Amino acid sequence: MPRIVSLEAGYYRVPLAVTLSDSMHGDMPAFELNTVQLRDADGAEGMGYTYTCGRNGAAIDAILRRDIPEQIVGEEADRIEHLWQRIWWGQHYGGRGGAAVLAQSAIDMALWDLKAKRLGQPLWTLLGGNDAKVPCYAGGIDLQLPLDQLLRQTDDNLRKGFRAIKMKVGRPKLSEDVERVRAMREHLGEGFPLMVDANMRWSADEAIRAARALQPFEPTWLEEPVIPDDVAGQARVVREGGLPIAAGENLRSLWDFKQLIAAGGVTYPEPDVTNCGGVTPFMKIAHLAEAFNLPVTSHGAHDVTVHLLAASPNRSYLEAHGFGLDAYIAEPLTIEEGFAVAPDRPGHGIAFDWKGLGAIRA
Amino acid sequence: MPRIVSLEAGYYRVPLAVTLSDSMHGDMPAFELNTVQLRDADGAEGMGYTYTCGRNGAAIDAILRRDIPEQIVGEEADRIEHLWQRIWWGQHYGGRGGAAVLAQSAIDMALWDLKAKRLGQPLWTLLGGNDAKVPCYAGGIDLQLPLDQLLRQTDDNLRKGFRAIKMKVGRPKLSEDVERVRAMREHLGEGFPLMVDANMRWSADEAIRAARALQPFEPTWLEEPVIPDDVAGQARVVREGGLPIAAGENLRSLWDFKQLIAAGGVTYPEPDVTNCGGVTPFMKIAHLAEAFNLPVTSHGAHDVTVHLLAASPNRSYLEAHGFGLDAYIAEPLTIEEGFAVAPDRPGHGIAFDWKGLGAIRA
Repeated sequence: MPRIVSLEAGYYRVPLAVTLSDSMHGDMPAFELNTVQLRDADGAEGMGYTYTCGRNGAAIDAILRRDIPEQIVGEEADRIEHLWQRIWWGQHYGGRGGAAVLAQSAIDMALWDLKAKRLGQPLWTLLGGNDAKVPCYAGGIDLQLPLDQLLRQTDDNLRKGFRAIKMKVGRPKLSEDVERVRAMREHLGEGFPLMVDANMRWSADEAIRAARALQPFEPTWLEEPVIPDDVAGQARVVREGGLPIAAGENLRSLWDFKQLIAAGGVTYPEPDVTNCGGVTPFMKIAHLAEAFNLPVTSHGAHDVTVHLLAASPNRSYLEAHGFGLDAYIAEPLTIEEGFAVAPDRPGHGIAFDWKGLGAIRA
Repeated sequence: MPRIVSLEAGYYRVPLAVTLSDSMHGDMPAFELNTVQLRDADGAEGMGYTYTCGRNGAAIDAILRRDIPEQIVGEEADRIEHLWQRIWWGQHYGGRGGAAVLAQSAIDMALWDLKAKRLGQPLWTLLGGNDAKVPCYAGGIDLQLPLDQLLRQTDDNLRKGFRAIKMKVGRPKLSEDVERVRAMREHLGEGFPLMVDANMRWSADEAIRAARALQPFEPTWLEEPVIPDDVAGQARVVREGGLPIAAGENLRSLWDFKQLIAAGGVTYPEPDVTNCGGVTPFMKIAHLAEAFNLPVTSHGAHDVTVHLLAASPNRSYLEAHGFGLDAYIAEPLTIEEGFAVAPDRPGHGIAFDWKGLGAIRA
């Protein structure tokens, strides 16, 4: 069993063509990207990454360079579970979430990439293999877009092959949200999958009122109605709001998901492989959802996540939003008639343009 | 209202005279210390700090230097609540725990120190003022100590003025724990406050078995029987184990405490001002405990925390363990007949020996 011989970390600031905004994170002019390349004693390589919407990337970089190498270099690369536990508990006091779990997510992704490459398997078959074709939606970050621009962006997404679209809600007045969702529903037609995302903006009662007001437009789900810490409140939104609820991009462990799922606080669990702890916990969360008879969706990193949903029988939609990263990926994911297809290349099959990234080092 | 004009961050590695160990963190040869000094436009200064048991200090330093200054420099120093929200939500995506909340804790402590100094008040009266005298216990990190050394350490603590002592449990065999607690009880005598700390080592069922086995020795509390994520499991330990349960050093927000307290999962909530988000959430957690008719205890940073418990009518014991920091503090806390006394100096009254710290820069 070959051992890990080196870890190389990269830290970049990815500019966005258009400043993004949502109801809680404010303006986002750039995303941060942290990469990690692991090499084993046979020269095989695995690559992982994580990202932030603008802060704490330097902290992730510090953990990848200063704290994690002594935990994994010299260890057997194939014992991913063992390494996951070692890092989680070794980082626990200053970790258990935040920068530490984002760093760990990148490491875990790199280890799975390495394993799959060594075996000559694409990740989605190594992890179980359900169906390479995964339905996919365009995740718009568009709360501040005037309505005509929102509709224009939607037409762009339809032209790109999307057959499901998410829009932001959480404007200062609920009536504005209702008008925008009504306009989108009219534009897209009955039955077209339309998701709405509040980014934690509301209290439980505000969310219940909003969910009821949005019911006539039949959104596929309402996402993150309240802060991730208000488990009891979100369970009320599920029970009283009358809409399916998606949540999970701000949960940082298997246990966070267990807490929310067991409390009846979510209909579509939505882990992000770059911040839930990596591929290892993502698959456990997908299986936990299956045990509770829930579909699993995803947040972020669609180029890698397509494999994870392609491995999961209870997979729902894959979220696609590129935040400018596609420009630095050799073969970005393509969408055809609403589906993304997990590539057949070994590993996750994503190769960064390292030279291009070199120009945007943070 | 003067504005914040500068933030200075320090990062140090504090050697320990003896390598510490507990059941989950393994060996700890050194602690990391991160400091922050804030200055306002009038030249007034506030100081805050946080620490780790050996990892992620560089990440905290990165957040203090790269991410937080743009959020607070130029802002009004007196609007601590406003700044707390600004940092929490501004860091949220790569934060919500981990290095980000440890960094934020140091900032919040510095802001309260600054406010109290400007007003010429010690922190404990500014925060409400209950009783400057706070009962205090010696927190031993001693799982690997042979029994005779454990008893010797205990005698040292008695000589230092302690009238309550905590010991570690979670040895490979429960019978070893039972023998060590029995020996300590015999050594200390009936009625002497003795706490035991498992550092998350057990499953809920193991913890219930251990609690029952330790009942005859009447520990004041059993601490952290299970991982902080197993809220339902710890509620079972409270109900079925027959011992009061302390926990909280690994919870990272007011909401984490709410979750555990509302579930009936803790008897002695135990926030750490250097990792729960700072003075602001610590006091809210103390008040939340009061609302649930629970005593509040503490973890870490006893020199500052004595003020917070001195302000709280439901205060229980203050934990004292210095991890080598006392050597770098001008007037370390003194213990007399089991009590610590909150100093009457303005602010928290702690001054670091910056020259001494300069020699252990990380």
